[in-house]
Amino acid sequence: MVFPRSVLVTGANRGIGLGLVQQFLKHSEVQIIIATARDVSKATELNAIKDPRLHVLPLIVTCDKSIDILVKEVEKIVGEQGLNLLVNNAGILSKYTTKSEPSRAILQEQINVNSISVVLVSQKFLPLLQKGAGKSTAPDFTVGKSAIVTISSRLGSIGLNVEGSGWFEGLAYRMSKSAVNQFNRTIAVDLEADGILAVAFCPGWVQTDLGTSNALLTVGQSASALVNSFSKLTKEHNGGYFTRELEVIPF
Amino acid sequence: MVFPRSVLVTGANRGIGLGLVQQFLKHSEVQIIIATARDVSKATELNAIKDPRLHVLPLIVTCDKSIDILVKEVEKIVGEQGLNLLVNNAGILSKYTTKSEPSRAILQEQINVNSISVVLVSQKFLPLLQKGAGKSTAPDFTVGKSAIVTISSRLGSIGLNVEGSGWFEGLAYRMSKSAVNQFNRTIAVDLEADGILAVAFCPGWVQTDLGTSNALLTVGQSASALVNSFSKLTKEHNGGYFTRELEVIPF
Ligand SMILES: NC(=O)c1ccc[n+]([C@@H]2O[C@H](COP(=O)([O-])OP(=O)(O)OC[C@H]3O[C@@H](n4cnc5c(N)ncnc54)[C@H](OP(=O)(O)O)[C@@H]3O)[C@@H](O)[C@H]2O)c1
Ligand SMILES: NC(=O)c1ccc[n+]([C@@H]2O[C@H](COP(=O)([O-])OP(=O)(O)OC[C@H]3O[C@@H](n4cnc5c(N)ncnc54)[C@H](OP(=O)(O)O)[C@@H]3O)[C@@H](O)[C@H]2O)c1
Repeated sequence: MVFPRSVLVTGANRGIGLGLVQQFLKHSEVQIIIATARDVSKATELNAIKDPRLHVLPLIVTCDKSIDILVKEVEKIVGEQGLNLLVNNAGILSKYTTKSEPSRAILQEQINVNSISVVLVSQKFLPLLQKGAGKSTAPDFTVGKSAIVTISSRLGSIGLNVEGSGWFEGLAYRMSKSAVNQFNRTIAVDLEADGILAVAFCPGWVQTDLGTSNALLTVGQSASALVNSFSKLTKEHNGGYFTRELEVIPF
Repeated sequence: MVFPRSVLVTGANRGIGLGLVQQFLKHSEVQIIIATARDVSKATELNAIKDPRLHVLPLIVTCDKSIDILVKEVEKIVGEQGLNLLVNNAGILSKYTTKSEPSRAILQEQINVNSISVVLVSQKFLPLLQKGAGKSTAPDFTVGKSAIVTISSRLGSIGLNVEGSGWFEGLAYRMSKSAVNQFNRTIAVDLEADGILAVAFCPGWVQTDLGTSNALLTVGQSASALVNSFSKLTKEHNGGYFTRELEVIPF
């Protein structure tokens, strides 16, 4: 098990993002945890945590300026060691089906948050992740060196899609997650030479505002399995798409 | 071989779209061919074709109003028989790699044209396609009944992506095509009950402005294979992703 020295989680004020922060805090190997929220003043759960390793910072993933400001703040915190793990978790589910009233705005918003913003955040953190990979003493090409983990969804699987829009009215959501899976696979190839891993995960169906209270898993169950799987990532997982238990999901 | 009574091709003023129109014109079973162009007055190749079955109409796929106007015009042409085949062909390739200067605008434009506009055009033509499926005397659930064919790309395959951004600087393009493959699969499930097929194709690497003159195939080679494969589509292909020769491409 190799844990990152430093990690940043987007959308960490509630749901799975908050759960991931809580799990990372349990591991003493993790020395810096940056939890981002759109409105830090309202992130009551995060603000209640008293641990010097935790830094709560603002991030609106759809705002380039917000990303730029965050990168500068994170640079000050991680210093010359760089960043070891970026977890792209922030996301929305906009209900949309084949027979919905056509709306370009809903489709654009869905894909802007879940796919395009993941590209922007990852690109802008690349210098810090490259630094992280270079300075880390972790085994070659593991999450302890440096990695970009993207929280995708099983609904992004095209091959497994036998439900159409029938699940979660998820036409636009599915498209956004397939796009982000392709992003993950592409950067995995592109960043291999930099020693940066890229892996996509489905967290399972989780009890959050997005997943609803009907979901099968608690946030704790999903987040602990995810963090455990992150700690096992090596070269062989690069570009892959996995369940929280590190089982392969077909694209 | 079952050919559609009526077909509409987007982006038909040049490249593969123009090639598809030329191939459809060779088949006398095809009674109505609607070829769209952003600027009809500049569509010289289309305007030079003298065949009463051909209707050249304006369409900017990124403009909702333009789609609405087209639907009304097509309704007048196809009448109570509805539309049998919509070919979503219009597309762009915006160069973008992991290490490009981050640009939300380029990503948004790429996905707006190649993915989101395909959703909008397909949704807005749904009533005419439903009519087409209902009125057609073609065998149940074939392209002669009614179908939405989307011209995707092999670069949309996540599983086959071992080149990263290395091919065509295609990070954003790949994402757009993976998203549209998921769209295709989702509507295939959603529209099965309406008797409307949905299938995605890669045309191969074709000599067009987008494909460059280095490409392996002429427009004629690609388009004739595609139209031949369209004529063979049945229920078993619904939601699939194929080469121009109707071989399965992994998602
Ligand atoms: N729950 C499930 O069953 C499930 C299943 C599969 C995949 N997922 C994925 O898991 C991830 C987390 O989902 P969740 O269930 O924890 O959802 P959630 O409880 O609704 O939380 C979503 C988080 O994303 C943040 N967010 C949304 N838009 C943002 C923006 N523009 N900028 C910054 N942050 C933004 C939210 O911030 P605010 O509080 O400010 O809105 C919140 O922190 C998502 O990517 C989701 O697609 C969830
Ligand atoms: N060529 C290849 O090797 C290859 C390989 C795989 C997939 N494909 C796919 O095949 C399709 C056709 O590509 P092509 O090679 O024929 O490209 P092309 O020669 O560049 O032609 C593109 C066509 O799309 C139209 N278009 C672009 N943006 C549009 C918009 N906003 N509204 C309406 N029409 C628009 C263009 O109209 P204007 O003339 O007005 O710009 C033109 O008619 C694309 O979806 C492409 O991704 C091509």
